[in-house]
Amino acid sequence: MKKIINDPATVVADALRGMALAHADLLDVQYDPAVVVRADAPVPRKVAVVSGGGSGHEPLHGGFVGRGMLDAACPGAVFTSPTPDQVQAALARTDGGAGAVLIVKNYTGDVLNFETGAELAAVDGVDVRTVVVDDDVAVRDSLFTAGRRGVGGTVLVEKVVGAAAERGVGLDGCEALARKVIGQVRSMGLALSPCTVPHAGQPSFALGDDEMELGVGIHGEPGRRRVPLAPADSLVPALLDPILADLPFAEGDRVLLFTNGMGGTPLMELYLAHGIAERLLAERGITVERRLVGPYVTSLEMQGMSLTLLKLDDELVELWDAPVRTAALRWGV
Amino acid sequence: MKKIINDPATVVADALRGMALAHADLLDVQYDPAVVVRADAPVPRKVAVVSGGGSGHEPLHGGFVGRGMLDAACPGAVFTSPTPDQVQAALARTDGGAGAVLIVKNYTGDVLNFETGAELAAVDGVDVRTVVVDDDVAVRDSLFTAGRRGVGGTVLVEKVVGAAAERGVGLDGCEALARKVIGQVRSMGLALSPCTVPHAGQPSFALGDDEMELGVGIHGEPGRRRVPLAPADSLVPALLDPILADLPFAEGDRVLLFTNGMGGTPLMELYLAHGIAERLLAERGITVERRLVGPYVTSLEMQGMSLTLLKLDDELVELWDAPVRTAALRWGV
Repeated sequence: MKKIINDPATVVADALRGMALAHADLLDVQYDPAVVVRADAPVPRKVAVVSGGGSGHEPLHGGFVGRGMLDAACPGAVFTSPTPDQVQAALARTDGGAGAVLIVKNYTGDVLNFETGAELAAVDGVDVRTVVVDDDVAVRDSLFTAGRRGVGGTVLVEKVVGAAAERGVGLDGCEALARKVIGQVRSMGLALSPCTVPHAGQPSFALGDDEMELGVGIHGEPGRRRVPLAPADSLVPALLDPILADLPFAEGDRVLLFTNGMGGTPLMELYLAHGIAERLLAERGITVERRLVGPYVTSLEMQGMSLTLLKLDDELVELWDAPVRTAALRWGV
Repeated sequence: MKKIINDPATVVADALRGMALAHADLLDVQYDPAVVVRADAPVPRKVAVVSGGGSGHEPLHGGFVGRGMLDAACPGAVFTSPTPDQVQAALARTDGGAGAVLIVKNYTGDVLNFETGAELAAVDGVDVRTVVVDDDVAVRDSLFTAGRRGVGGTVLVEKVVGAAAERGVGLDGCEALARKVIGQVRSMGLALSPCTVPHAGQPSFALGDDEMELGVGIHGEPGRRRVPLAPADSLVPALLDPILADLPFAEGDRVLLFTNGMGGTPLMELYLAHGIAERLLAERGITVERRLVGPYVTSLEMQGMSLTLLKLDDELVELWDAPVRTAALRWGV
């Protein structure tokens, strides 16, 4: 295992310490329990937007904490759900009196622990609305999850709901918006190589030199099938077609196309794949109005990518374009 | 070789097509010869700031084209210098009548081809000032270069000079500023794994399971020495100490610390290393006033990192903080 770390047991806290130093203007990091909080939290009378999940997917979620996006993120151990006391602490630290939307990726452990954390916060007097993101069209009822997994679409939910909360939209409105985005976003990914969780020390799965995993999960969970390597002109439709068929997306639709890197894939390859996806969408009469290209929902050093499509309308375009100031996404401020 | 590409022969143009679609608001891409140009170029009466180099280091340089940074970037083949006609075309497309600063990383091929391109542009009537970045303290007179190599410091030169040009600083002032930054910036990197150039199809070098290359170049050139893997607490000083000794940096200095990922290293590890570097600098009485953490000067999927230190003063802090709007760096707009 080749990693720039000290001890697998302290890797999350060690990385958080660096993040706190790198972004002291944006973030306040607490360690016991671990929570990454927006520096000016709580924001009075604003709905708090809180998320989190296992570490190893950076910049998700701590990289999206800041003005116009998340108020707090709960980082679990690598590929492991955060604990209920982390969720409770995040909600307590960000409560501005207007309630909170808790954005959870659909993994069984996450759903259970966030729900318990939300219940503890409710006892503390916070009105918490939990929404579960389940955008991965690849598999239903996988190894780690009942129902579909939550993947790249989570970033888009966090951006849109964060923008609405920043504008003063109330708790009911923010919750409804989260459910709307979840209803209109779909994703699928592929892996060319596995990754190694530090405390495991061994690759999470094995792939032959000429194989890839189509529909892989962000922890390296099995996908739809293991298939031979193919040119990008074949790989991109293998991700895009199931996404288009699922919602379905149709001619005349306006979309945001998010081409995501899994961590170990060069940006050059992501742009190459993005270009193919844009051209395929144009051929179908689907208009790409907004884009995001880069490694935003990663799986440590895994080589691979995912595509996410969000169906847009004027409301979502305006909220996507709204100012955001976080470590990983920033514009307008 | 596992890559998301079609044909190694067309990988750069294929990636540029995706970049053009992803960032149509920022960039205008031309293909023969290949140049990535700021969408609103030429900007009348502004000094043009132009750079470029081999592809495979994305987001360097095309990701830094836009308001407040580069006017154009010339992408060569992977790890290969751009040709003089690319440089000539970039200078012609961005000439606003105030001359141009050409920022070149110190590799023999780049220096030769940029110099020839600048001479062709001079015949066209453009006043071109060429500056050569040579910030890598690891080796002098390496396999590919007479003198020191140009690495991560290039991003800082591009940002500072781009900000000055945007404010209306003239050609002499921009050139002097570039030379000032080059004089005050130092870098060093390490690799945990090699990378594979698409048209080569084989890893650029071999490393044992327990080895790393200390002082590696951004094309995988040999560094100072091959050493056993070590904890991050040992790796970070192995990069930082030679940087500090070289300029030298001293107690009381104000610096920008840039912790760069080589492409395949998880962001979590970069933050972890960044935190160690900040603490070591604090112990020496050196004040970290600005930071940049992420994969900005990459070597395809290579696992590894580099540290860059720039000595700051009020002028450089102000130019670093100035608004920038590019694909890879954006703030204030």
